[in-house]
Amino acid sequence: MKLHWSPRSPFVRKVMIAAHETGMVGRIERIRSVAAMLEPNAALMRDNPWSKIPTLITDEGLALFDSDVIVEYLDSLHAGPKLHPTEPEHRWRALRWRAFGSEMLDALILWRNERERPADRRLPALIEAFDLKVDAGLRMLEAEVPEFTAAPFSVGHIALGCALGYIDLRFESLAWRDQLPALAAWQAEFKRRPSTIATEAVDDR
Amino acid sequence: MKLHWSPRSPFVRKVMIAAHETGMVGRIERIRSVAAMLEPNAALMRDNPWSKIPTLITDEGLALFDSDVIVEYLDSLHAGPKLHPTEPEHRWRALRWRAFGSEMLDALILWRNERERPADRRLPALIEAFDLKVDAGLRMLEAEVPEFTAAPFSVGHIALGCALGYIDLRFESLAWRDQLPALAAWQAEFKRRPSTIATEAVDDR
Repeated sequence: MKLHWSPRSPFVRKVMIAAHETGMVGRIERIRSVAAMLEPNAALMRDNPWSKIPTLITDEGLALFDSDVIVEYLDSLHAGPKLHPTEPEHRWRALRWRAFGSEMLDALILWRNERERPADRRLPALIEAFDLKVDAGLRMLEAEVPEFTAAPFSVGHIALGCALGYIDLRFESLAWRDQLPALAAWQAEFKRRPSTIATEAVDDR
Repeated sequence: MKLHWSPRSPFVRKVMIAAHETGMVGRIERIRSVAAMLEPNAALMRDNPWSKIPTLITDEGLALFDSDVIVEYLDSLHAGPKLHPTEPEHRWRALRWRAFGSEMLDALILWRNERERPADRRLPALIEAFDLKVDAGLRMLEAEVPEFTAAPFSVGHIALGCALGYIDLRFESLAWRDQLPALAAWQAEFKRRPSTIATEAVDDR
């Protein structure tokens, strides 16, 4: 399999954590691909017209995206404990947390794009809206920590962990840990997994 | 079940088409909810801090999002033909098309947001990038029409049909049908399904 990859994309990281968790990492050849919102990447677009990473090319030549589809595909290739629970009581919570993490990442990335525009091309109301949503999202997660700590490890945890990791990488000023101690403790535990240590992003700007 | 809903959201439409296809529509109570990117909706945020629709509240009180998770949930509640194929040869193509449709919608919505900004707050390079990607995406779909016409009806078809429907609603000027006749013929067929007729959006601005 080939994976359009970059070292600091939080969506790519979801796939790489899943690749480690499922034992598939040795079967994936990484292709360093740049996906910038303002500069479509012609080579990447031949596999994914939306010019986004991660994009996986299976051994049969099928180009899969987005990160959730790729993770589900990897999870279908191994016989170990599954990242997608099948029992309803766990499954819908796991998929909800998976979406929760993706929504947080989408908001953070659009927020970052907005604040990196030339000052006179920003919409202050948009920046305020993202601020409000991320704050509300983090507080809701804090209240759910007992529930997702008790749940079997799943795509939900991977998505939440990658979203929090992206805050640490790009939004350090949010300084959320003091106010959300249960979430901070959960993240500290998440960061001790071999799969997350192996995929940690480093800000080398 | 309760669904945060609005009549012209293409992501809500995916859920409503699935609700018709799975026979679940009668079990869903719709709550008219406005989700505007610049104006977080406090009532909606109690169920979904990202202030987005669709959001489904199950009979057990679990708030599910995004549209793909809700559709998968509805598909788990009935005994008829499933919208999520289980055979690998169909499943990964269906989930790829589902993601393809979502990516197209995300691009279209961001494109629309950008062109609706005050002229001096737009980024022309961003508008050009969306133009290029949507054009590339539509051409790739045209080439895949034989494949998705032959595949069993799935979440993939729903997502593609809703993305094309949104182009008709908000991007009429793209006038893609002349250049992509196979895709146009497929869409005409899609629009004849009772589930799509029942959920057609009307532009009443």
